Amino acid sequence: MLSKDEFERVKNKALELFKKAHIVLTEDEKNKLTISDGDLGKVDEIGLEIIVYVNTDRYCAKEMALLPNQTCAEHRHPNIDGQRGKEETFRCRYGKVYLFVEGEKTPRHVEPPNEYFTASHEIILNPGDQYTIPPNTLHWFKAGPQGAVISELSSHSDDPSDIFTDPNFKRT
Amino acid sequence: MLSKDEFERVKNKALELFKKAHIVLTEDEKNKLTISDGDLGKVDEIGLEIIVYVNTDRYCAKEMALLPNQTCAEHRHPNIDGQRGKEETFRCRYGKVYLFVEGEKTPRHVEPPNEYFTASHEIILNPGDQYTIPPNTLHWFKAGPQGAVISELSSHSDDPSDIFTDPNFKRT
Repeated sequence: MLSKDEFERVKNKALELFKKAHIVLTEDEKNKLTISDGDLGKVDEIGLEIIVYVNTDRYCAKEMALLPNQTCAEHRHPNIDGQRGKEETFRCRYGKVYLFVEGEKTPRHVEPPNEYFTASHEIILNPGDQYTIPPNTLHWFKAGPQGAVISELSSHSDDPSDIFTDPNFKRT
Repeated sequence: MLSKDEFERVKNKALELFKKAHIVLTEDEKNKLTISDGDLGKVDEIGLEIIVYVNTDRYCAKEMALLPNQTCAEHRHPNIDGQRGKEETFRCRYGKVYLFVEGEKTPRHVEPPNEYFTASHEIILNPGDQYTIPPNTLHWFKAGPQGAVISELSSHSDDPSDIFTDPNFKRT
């Protein structure tokens, strides 16, 4: 688990990015920020900072930050009991996002951190660009050197059901 | 219907508000902006400017602008064929929003434009504040003197099924 100091350091960097993106947050929301690093012990390289705005049984909205060159671990949102998995739209608000999804392999402009990143169809998102990821589709995404802020708009979010490619990634 | 000149005038004011809110939009999105004024002929008083980011069968996200003191006409999103009506979360990004929903009457800080505004429970949203409106609930909302920008996050949007209180309001 991240130490309190590590958590605060990364949280403060994420809050700076939200500020650069002119995202206004309440104090309560800032205090609810979570960090998804899978307990891999390399949060600056593999991690994602998240604030959930709303998550009803029908839809969900989050604001997400990636530190410079930070990567969100590859995962998918599986179908469960005949219910379609989470469908999500990423809208870049700040910085540059290199999003990789399953599909035809494309030339890539950034490198994955290790072998647990298999999706190889690259989509580059600049501010104002967005992309919708179908359910049950492997994806990972990495920020450029400025970091990035992404609004995630989606169907209901059930994080514990996410399936990560890296067997060492722990939901915390 | 709004004349081309009227449409452009209101559209440009809305785009200025999005700019003040630091919302980055593509040219394509700017060109897709719609104005919902019900053909009432008083768009500066009753109207809403909308850009739809995404609308799948499961969720929808829009960016909305209200000109200074402009009011969105009262309406509700009914249940249809046993399916729950649209549930929506308004998140204020810029300016001040006076949102009125069905419920216990409260003191109000702004006046409705006419008698077709009946919901009398006021919620004030400043930047960073949000409120979730249940399905089938009458609501209307008005900007303060600076205008306002609101992110709408919701279940699937089916505008033609909306029911407006004013019988003269025409879906165009």
